[in-house]
Amino acid sequence: MTTTTLTQAAIEADERVPAIRITRDFKATPAQLLKAHTDPAVFSRWIGPKNMRNEITVWEPRTGGEWRYVQHRDGEEYRFRGCFHEVSEQRIVQTFTYEGFPDGVALETMSFEDLGNGYTRLHAQSLCDSFEARDGMLSSGMDVGVHEGYAKLDDLLAQGEA
Amino acid sequence: MTTTTLTQAAIEADERVPAIRITRDFKATPAQLLKAHTDPAVFSRWIGPKNMRNEITVWEPRTGGEWRYVQHRDGEEYRFRGCFHEVSEQRIVQTFTYEGFPDGVALETMSFEDLGNGYTRLHAQSLCDSFEARDGMLSSGMDVGVHEGYAKLDDLLAQGEA
Repeated sequence: MTTTTLTQAAIEADERVPAIRITRDFKATPAQLLKAHTDPAVFSRWIGPKNMRNEITVWEPRTGGEWRYVQHRDGEEYRFRGCFHEVSEQRIVQTFTYEGFPDGVALETMSFEDLGNGYTRLHAQSLCDSFEARDGMLSSGMDVGVHEGYAKLDDLLAQGEA
Repeated sequence: MTTTTLTQAAIEADERVPAIRITRDFKATPAQLLKAHTDPAVFSRWIGPKNMRNEITVWEPRTGGEWRYVQHRDGEEYRFRGCFHEVSEQRIVQTFTYEGFPDGVALETMSFEDLGNGYTRLHAQSLCDSFEARDGMLSSGMDVGVHEGYAKLDDLLAQGEA
């Protein structure tokens, strides 16, 4: 059990490798957080900024599956896609591409640490193949989507809907 | 057209990021090299060390597909798996795990540069999430499999079988 609850996501750039690490606590079990990342009916309700509408077009949350979704806002579309390398109780490992920059591919890993007392810590890592790509992702405004998305997930959990 | 033909693979550890880069020339077209990496009947005849027998168990060489194969030698088995993030004429992007070390996941990218005069240069990158994992992969004897595998592919190309 750690002393501080991270109710705001810590978003950190690794110094040695071109990775972003996100750490965030939720009032949830590990199984609930796994479901929040794999059940399309739940995932589509929280991922991304609060003023986006998510449309999941392909969703195979299993080892070897594929995923695609579109975020809609004011007539604009932002498309994302990847494949699930591993989906297990221990972790999700997947690839991630924003189709507006199709050459960029990140390898993402998410795991869920039981903190006790009904809290679980999400550990998420996005690995890019260059520091330039990593820093571009960091400066893209991703933090807004991360914070607003996790706040939506907090609400779903509090309402018993995740 | 470059001045030197790389008939032996150059295997290089990147200094800044935990990646391995392999460069190797083949007397082939880009389309032949793409086929050699995606057609299971061809791929299974050259990948890995020369004294291994490859058994492909899952093979979906398309964006969003999955792959698995087993290498057999002297009653031992070595299992590998991953998913295809992108399969296109431009490149293959896939994940890679050796199941003997299931926590390790590399993000692999392969592209095919037409050098003219019937030669194509393969550019392959394996990105790991730590320098320790990258260096472990380098010291695992992978160079033997790389060199022997590409020599088998040279033979298939020379025999008109790839």
